[in-house]
Amino acid sequence: LEGGRAEDVALVMEPLHNSDVGDVLEQLDAAERVALVRSLGDLFDFSALTEVDESIRLEIMQALPNAEIARGVAELDNDDAVYLLEDLEQEDRDEILSALPTFERLALKRSLDFPEDSAGRRMQTEFIAIPPFWTVGQVIDYLRTEKDLPDEFYQLYVVDAAYKVLGTLPLDKFLRSARAIKIDTIMNTNFVLIDAEQDQEEAARSFERYDLVEVGVVDESGRLVGVLTIDDIVDVIQEEAEEDIRFMAGVGDEDVSDTTVDTVRSRVPWLVINLFTAVAVSFVIGLFDATIEQMVALAVLMPIVASMGGNAGAQTMTVTVRALAMRELDGGRLRRLIRREMVVGLANGVIFAILIGIVTGLRYGDVQLGIVIGLAMVINMIVAGTFGILIPLTLDKLKADPAIASAVFVTTITDVVGFFAFLGIAGLWFGLF
Amino acid sequence: LEGGRAEDVALVMEPLHNSDVGDVLEQLDAAERVALVRSLGDLFDFSALTEVDESIRLEIMQALPNAEIARGVAELDNDDAVYLLEDLEQEDRDEILSALPTFERLALKRSLDFPEDSAGRRMQTEFIAIPPFWTVGQVIDYLRTEKDLPDEFYQLYVVDAAYKVLGTLPLDKFLRSARAIKIDTIMNTNFVLIDAEQDQEEAARSFERYDLVEVGVVDESGRLVGVLTIDDIVDVIQEEAEEDIRFMAGVGDEDVSDTTVDTVRSRVPWLVINLFTAVAVSFVIGLFDATIEQMVALAVLMPIVASMGGNAGAQTMTVTVRALAMRELDGGRLRRLIRREMVVGLANGVIFAILIGIVTGLRYGDVQLGIVIGLAMVINMIVAGTFGILIPLTLDKLKADPAIASAVFVTTITDVVGFFAFLGIAGLWFGLF
Repeated sequence: LEGGRAEDVALVMEPLHNSDVGDVLEQLDAAERVALVRSLGDLFDFSALTEVDESIRLEIMQALPNAEIARGVAELDNDDAVYLLEDLEQEDRDEILSALPTFERLALKRSLDFPEDSAGRRMQTEFIAIPPFWTVGQVIDYLRTEKDLPDEFYQLYVVDAAYKVLGTLPLDKFLRSARAIKIDTIMNTNFVLIDAEQDQEEAARSFERYDLVEVGVVDESGRLVGVLTIDDIVDVIQEEAEEDIRFMAGVGDEDVSDTTVDTVRSRVPWLVINLFTAVAVSFVIGLFDATIEQMVALAVLMPIVASMGGNAGAQTMTVTVRALAMRELDGGRLRRLIRREMVVGLANGVIFAILIGIVTGLRYGDVQLGIVIGLAMVINMIVAGTFGILIPLTLDKLKADPAIASAVFVTTITDVVGFFAFLGIAGLWFGLF
Repeated sequence: LEGGRAEDVALVMEPLHNSDVGDVLEQLDAAERVALVRSLGDLFDFSALTEVDESIRLEIMQALPNAEIARGVAELDNDDAVYLLEDLEQEDRDEILSALPTFERLALKRSLDFPEDSAGRRMQTEFIAIPPFWTVGQVIDYLRTEKDLPDEFYQLYVVDAAYKVLGTLPLDKFLRSARAIKIDTIMNTNFVLIDAEQDQEEAARSFERYDLVEVGVVDESGRLVGVLTIDDIVDVIQEEAEEDIRFMAGVGDEDVSDTTVDTVRSRVPWLVINLFTAVAVSFVIGLFDATIEQMVALAVLMPIVASMGGNAGAQTMTVTVRALAMRELDGGRLRRLIRREMVVGLANGVIFAILIGIVTGLRYGDVQLGIVIGLAMVINMIVAGTFGILIPLTLDKLKADPAIASAVFVTTITDVVGFFAFLGIAGLWFGLF
């Protein structure tokens, strides 16, 4: 591919959707990617860069001269342009911005002034605003003659002179109305708006909840400054669920295409934390080394109690973390969930105490050892249920992301309690202290 | 609320969006829910039931007489009706269907004939199909006079006499065209269609990839039979990521509002599997009981090696499972990922071997013990990286869902290898066999 002539490459790439171009870029090696983009020159549509992993995007953009990026960015929708620029170094960003036409530069600057991950960052600043006193016919004529319209739009915004939203008008409803009808008689006056400072995840909640396709974004003075469309929000929903999965497993903000060094850097902190807790847990075991020395079966059996508690805790924790993320826990539902998880912990404890008690009793021909491990299991399962719900709740109350830190706390507690309960009860029961 | 008069309740509930009605239902107790629905009678909009957890939906629908459900379902869009009916018992479903008007019944039956979780199940059967030879003006007049249009639509479908799709026409593009223009000169001829038999997750991939808002669904003969809209797909995307999180934690298809018994039933199978593997792992430890008896520090330290391997394995596994779910792994990228994870495993192994080696050496004043645990750590980290990627890949090749079963295999392997390597190397090194 790369050995050939640039025109041939352009010919092949031209009809592809930008997602497909993104795919092609991800398949290539680092050097080939930049070569491909450069050989396409003006024909390269920068929107393809919104479809590739962050590390690849940054790598390509760093390899390109800022003037070339400015030319590519100038042709993008405002929201795509912000998406490409927001991760760049301040210096590169300013250089690119200053190379853009005034109008685009100001619009981009305003979007970039909103906090990271806010609705203002994700919004598109092109939208169609119409006055309430126009008729359907006037609006249709306006749409047919006006050249500078957004690429895609699903509703019209009815605004007053200060750009305060008076109503919204979905295209399907608009289309069904006769030319003579006044806009303010058919517009929806019961509409949702989103604050530009609002977090994009909150905005995504509104889309899901009210089945929105497009929503107006207003600044603090209530002025319509942009719109969010569902295609941006689909990415937010995807990313958010993705984030929870990764955080629970202790994987940072990592892509399949990250380099080895970046990957190690993203994973080591979590493993270091885990090393600390594992060493701490081993100190708990160390308290009982004399007990273990007298009865080595305890060392053989103790990981079972800890592992079962860890898994049961992870189950409760996962349900709680996701319910918190989906804002499903308020008053009545929260109390019911806590009550349920306690009972589930007790029930699991009894079920698995009996099972492991029987298995252990048969394996060692020792009923008492079976009773001891059963007791430890009941305790650890109840602890797992209780902390599996309390830890994410507490982190959420403390404004920490429960997905990030819950797992380490829960497993540490179930490990400590598992080993302590089993070795402690065994020591007392068999008089080994 | 429930003590009062039905009209008052209706008055309060009436202006609420169906998501909010769903929320109110979830907040109530089981008995109150049914009482509320019944007291609202005809005023209850059954679409609120699409917004509540499955267990609550089934509970309410089982408590209502089928005739009442039929009346409520008749007023719903086809896709919402299918969503409510698909989980009912065959018998109830047939009774409700037979109480519906013929046209609705046939449309619902056809949707229900498609496989579960297919695009055909999720699609809406109302759409706007127009012939290619109409003009924009004719279409506008048709839309203005025709009463029986879908509630919401974002594009028009240009079809031939056999309902084969010739092109699509987004409303925004349509609106910008003059009345005299012929439809076939402005329609998009480069469009995406979805097969009704296709899995809804595949359909969701197309929406994300091509930033779709609405897409036509065709049957095996290529005839347009319905449309999928983004609001249904947002739910699919949400559910799918949700499923992976839950499956990885061994939580089944479970909601916050499930009963205690259902919750126990959903979680016990996973814990039973974990019990089996934990017992199997303990047999591995049991092989070394004489070794442990001679050097009890081994029992104190061994969970560290297993736990670090388990966490590193979970990291690799999570990245792989998600990459598989997002279809990000093909040829070049897969090879790069495997190579990267091996190197990451080795790097993590070296880093944590040194750390734990130093900690152990200092704690026990025994350099040799530090070397032994370091060696075991390197081995287990490499194993974790290797199996963290190979197990999900193999499950995917075998057409099993990697999210469900990967975790149990990976942790069992890292536990077995962790204990075996550490105790085995220690036994050889210190001559304890």
